Amino acid sequence: MGSTRARIAIDAMGGDHAPSEIVAGALRAQAELGVEVLLVGDPKQIAASTPNASNLSSLEIVPAEGTIEMGEEPLGALRRKPKASINVAMELVKKNRADAVVSAGHSGAAMAAALLRLGRLKGIDRPAIGAVFPTMIQGKPVIILDVGANVDCRPKFLEQFATMGSVYSQYVLGVSAPKVGLLNIGEESSKGNDLALRTHQLLQENQAISFIGNAEGRDVLSGHFDVIVCDGFVGNVLLKFAEAVGEVALQILREELPQGLHGKLGTSLLKPNLKRIKQRMDHAEHGGGLLLGVDGVCIISHGSSQAPSIFNAVRLAREAFDNRVLERIQANYDETNQLPTVSSSQVDS
Amino acid sequence: MGSTRARIAIDAMGGDHAPSEIVAGALRAQAELGVEVLLVGDPKQIAASTPNASNLSSLEIVPAEGTIEMGEEPLGALRRKPKASINVAMELVKKNRADAVVSAGHSGAAMAAALLRLGRLKGIDRPAIGAVFPTMIQGKPVIILDVGANVDCRPKFLEQFATMGSVYSQYVLGVSAPKVGLLNIGEESSKGNDLALRTHQLLQENQAISFIGNAEGRDVLSGHFDVIVCDGFVGNVLLKFAEAVGEVALQILREELPQGLHGKLGTSLLKPNLKRIKQRMDHAEHGGGLLLGVDGVCIISHGSSQAPSIFNAVRLAREAFDNRVLERIQANYDETNQLPTVSSSQVDS
Repeated sequence: MGSTRARIAIDAMGGDHAPSEIVAGALRAQAELGVEVLLVGDPKQIAASTPNASNLSSLEIVPAEGTIEMGEEPLGALRRKPKASINVAMELVKKNRADAVVSAGHSGAAMAAALLRLGRLKGIDRPAIGAVFPTMIQGKPVIILDVGANVDCRPKFLEQFATMGSVYSQYVLGVSAPKVGLLNIGEESSKGNDLALRTHQLLQENQAISFIGNAEGRDVLSGHFDVIVCDGFVGNVLLKFAEAVGEVALQILREELPQGLHGKLGTSLLKPNLKRIKQRMDHAEHGGGLLLGVDGVCIISHGSSQAPSIFNAVRLAREAFDNRVLERIQANYDETNQLPTVSSSQVDS
Repeated sequence: MGSTRARIAIDAMGGDHAPSEIVAGALRAQAELGVEVLLVGDPKQIAASTPNASNLSSLEIVPAEGTIEMGEEPLGALRRKPKASINVAMELVKKNRADAVVSAGHSGAAMAAALLRLGRLKGIDRPAIGAVFPTMIQGKPVIILDVGANVDCRPKFLEQFATMGSVYSQYVLGVSAPKVGLLNIGEESSKGNDLALRTHQLLQENQAISFIGNAEGRDVLSGHFDVIVCDGFVGNVLLKFAEAVGEVALQILREELPQGLHGKLGTSLLKPNLKRIKQRMDHAEHGGGLLLGVDGVCIISHGSSQAPSIFNAVRLAREAFDNRVLERIQANYDETNQLPTVSSSQVDS
């Protein structure tokens, strides 16, 4: 924890509602979260985007030129635009002028920029994006990873996701011995596709995590698992489906609740309760995904993020920084890296 | 269509609530759906399971011995228990004593029994389980396949799923030119894992279906797609997640709506509206998955099915039979099987 205020670099130019909503979220985060915000982007556009430009004096604006557009191929675009906002934001972390990056821009570009400029943590083959979902049990969220960084995975990648997710669950979400599940199509260890079968075995042999078995689709939100690992294809489909399904449920409520005279009266009485329901179902409350495995705290927010999402993303970044998630993942690998040396020489002899 | 009543063989012994709930659903289906029910199982247990055993005289009971248990390996168990209820039910279709099978038992065993006893339709490499989901647009459901039959798929399997799903959508759900989507992690054709990339190309080249592009997780329930194809791993995770998430939403409603005095009053006024909401969110309303690609109509219901699910599964079976889904899938392949002969000889020359 300590008394150091987290310095958060926010990509002001990335996302469907950039820069206005990003700036609004950044201003609120600076005012309420006890963090130091560095807003990265075109100073003119940033100034023009807010009705209260004078408020901008409360935070630092770091100039950048251009942004990576959604259609662009990440690596090429990052090279062509070295001063693009996401590149500049990552550089701030690299140069230790910031502790974390928040971006709602091109997620592939954010990931590539993080890899290029910050590099991977030792022991991690592939970074993963973790998403925190609320579950049936209030106050007991689950972190699912990967939700989109790696579409084709090998078993050891998923094992690393399990380690990183466990660290996050333990040190940010406060779960003492996080229960890890493998997303699969049945409870039995004999179930699953080739990747799931081989990963199951690896996870079972890993003594550093608490693997409790397969998690089916229906178990994701049950609250029985603290960490669920899967490849980035399945995870991304699930994440986007989950976000949309909350909206479907809210729409069904909007259509059905006010039907009829009793319906209209009842619905008007329930306004505050419906607001709480909306909060529990709305993905904007959850801020964004954490890119785990690169040497810096990076929050990848939704392209559709508005001010509340950005605010929550900054809070997520602050929590990851304050709780030293990266150091703890790294420490985990420093320790376990020594163990295999012993056991593999035993195997060899 | 015609005047022939569909003859539906129901596996009375399969499922968590067998035989009582299965028998209850079967009796209701026989009474209300204009079908002829053949109840397959242990006559004593069937008789003991219902408070109105006299009602059983309205339908035919076909004796069977034992059932495939959830933990059993399907192929071995089916061979060891030739008189198991699922085997007997499939035999009834094979011998043309029934037109369709409904089972809530071991889904792997139902699939294997269908393959062994009924065989595949010509042109189909792998049967798929299709699940019909309601969408944001009322009255415009989407069929998703495969939701569990094939965990590791090749692109041509998914192409066949697209054809079978289109036939189902057109002739059972009444959509004139079903829009087909490929479940993927982005809209662009360059997005996806290896399977998705290669399948995208195949679907684009297939002139017999209306492929309109990738469907992301958020598009599944949007109503913009009539058919969505994916491998059985992703599809199964999605199906089970979707079913559970409806329950999560209902639980959030149950917890939050009656809070406070206004909440209690408002909720009591909304009782009928809440019942409609429950119906729209509850998966029991949707009956079960259709096993497409085998030479017989097979509905694979949920293990947790109770009477309403079985009733809806029988309705689904009747619709598939009445609308001659199997013949139409087959016809599709008989036609298209001739086309490639011409074009491939053109390519060769």
